[in-house]
Amino acid sequence: MTRRALVLGAGGFIGSHLSRRLLRRGWRVTGVVRDASDPVVARRLGDLAADLELVEGDAADPDLLDRLVAGRDAVFPFAGRSGAAASMQAPVADLDANGRGQLAVLEALRRRNPEARAVFPGSRLQYGRCERLPVPETHPQRPVSVYGVHKVLGEQYHRLYWSTHGIPTTVLRISNPYGPMQDRPDGSFGVVGNFLARASRGAEIRLYGGGTQVRDYLYIDDLTSLCELAVTHPAAPGEVFNASGPEPVTLRRMAEAVVETVGAGTIVCADWPAEAASVETGDYFGETRRASSVLGWKPRVGLREGLAATWAARTPSLAAAG
Amino acid sequence: MTRRALVLGAGGFIGSHLSRRLLRRGWRVTGVVRDASDPVVARRLGDLAADLELVEGDAADPDLLDRLVAGRDAVFPFAGRSGAAASMQAPVADLDANGRGQLAVLEALRRRNPEARAVFPGSRLQYGRCERLPVPETHPQRPVSVYGVHKVLGEQYHRLYWSTHGIPTTVLRISNPYGPMQDRPDGSFGVVGNFLARASRGAEIRLYGGGTQVRDYLYIDDLTSLCELAVTHPAAPGEVFNASGPEPVTLRRMAEAVVETVGAGTIVCADWPAEAASVETGDYFGETRRASSVLGWKPRVGLREGLAATWAARTPSLAAAG
Repeated sequence: MTRRALVLGAGGFIGSHLSRRLLRRGWRVTGVVRDASDPVVARRLGDLAADLELVEGDAADPDLLDRLVAGRDAVFPFAGRSGAAASMQAPVADLDANGRGQLAVLEALRRRNPEARAVFPGSRLQYGRCERLPVPETHPQRPVSVYGVHKVLGEQYHRLYWSTHGIPTTVLRISNPYGPMQDRPDGSFGVVGNFLARASRGAEIRLYGGGTQVRDYLYIDDLTSLCELAVTHPAAPGEVFNASGPEPVTLRRMAEAVVETVGAGTIVCADWPAEAASVETGDYFGETRRASSVLGWKPRVGLREGLAATWAARTPSLAAAG
Repeated sequence: MTRRALVLGAGGFIGSHLSRRLLRRGWRVTGVVRDASDPVVARRLGDLAADLELVEGDAADPDLLDRLVAGRDAVFPFAGRSGAAASMQAPVADLDANGRGQLAVLEALRRRNPEARAVFPGSRLQYGRCERLPVPETHPQRPVSVYGVHKVLGEQYHRLYWSTHGIPTTVLRISNPYGPMQDRPDGSFGVVGNFLARASRGAEIRLYGGGTQVRDYLYIDDLTSLCELAVTHPAAPGEVFNASGPEPVTLRRMAEAVVETVGAGTIVCADWPAEAASVETGDYFGETRRASSVLGWKPRVGLREGLAATWAARTPSLAAAG
């Protein structure tokens, strides 16, 4: 029997790749987007038009959710707002998008489809400043941004609806995902997408504090395979997994790899802007042993391979800019 | 110079007692209530009418807050919704009252008065099921109710606005406060108030699971003295304190003390109703060493003394019912 998925935020970077993967793997997919005429959304979903059932609407609207969650095998509440620094400027908007939105989905599942599997897209930013690397899922959560606070909130909702209402949902704490179509015309979305966009127009890539910050980078195909496992593997419900890339990399090394991949761009050092400094967490590298032992998942794509694939699949806007 | 306080939720159980204490100690106090004509609110604030500056309004309204926080030495955002079981029935309303309301106050402080001291009224329910007694502030927080999740959220907001914006706020994780005027006409508010109201009309006090659950009970005067210390003591900003009573007591012993105090009422055992069982945390007794060593505060009123004072100060509605 064909499995049926609901992807909220299907026009987003993760939501669009996930929709594509699920369709390719034989799922029927309904995707909710706020504004299908947004050129970024249209570009991301262009090739899916024939297969994806597209719904335009508010992914936190209770009536719409009640209607759409019914009959699904899996629900991915991936609509939301990105950006730690942005959340400090607009904390109430962040609460509505990342907190209230999750609660609305869980309430709809409770009312209409408590057996559907679900995934919460959490964040490494839930941890705040980390005491050791790699960071296991048991590390304390002390977020240093409103965004991080609301990702903790979303996770607690999901865990509570699992423990109290039995809704089989799984938490992923995602590090830095990257891949094709992450770039936005304003170059603002995601550190890898941002660096790629700058390099492609021969612009400066600015590293704050010398670029010594350690991060891990998760190629989008590795992430979407984990998302699918999270709604199909029998051991996933109620669990929390780090979704991290295969290796720790300094920001400088990542920037150098971007410049080499693109064949353009220059790297310069810059002082920390205040709004970035206040939400900076220091080094991060997530431990993925848990996802490996419980789900048999491992990140497979290394940074150079992932950057090459991202660059090869570059979209007209990036190619034009480059 | 006269100190100026803003008490949001001044018509609530804690807010009304706190307003009374601050006025007695020479503060100028402005109190915000949703509906001054509510008979419960009118009764609680009746004797303060000449001294309290009363404002009717929505304690989460940004414009009202911008106007009211300016010029205050201390702000007490004590408006909100009570009740773990109720929060499971109306999770979005609980988010608005207990989450978004705190964020609105902190944003107003950031904009208009970042030097004002503030107190977050957290809850023992942030801990969820506890691993050991007494429970120190370092115990993990795994709330088992939407109410508990939102109290964690409020605490994280306060800690973030302290660490990032320097707003000098203090978190209290309050156990079971009790005292005069906690009783509501429907007998629904607070376990001690509920038991007192039942005993006073000679009704049955129902203990779920035999009444073996350990709790601590904090007399309201002990709590309001801690609230004042939290906005005046130089070591309080950025800190988290358990606000607990002096001793661990089983629910059965508390019920027996209520029956003896009132001289009426009977105690019966009952099965757990599902909605109470799902949010039950098991035993709780908060460790207060931290508030003692940092602030020099200790709970002074024992349960029998506190019950006697509560009963002696009983309000017309209770007396009539009794």
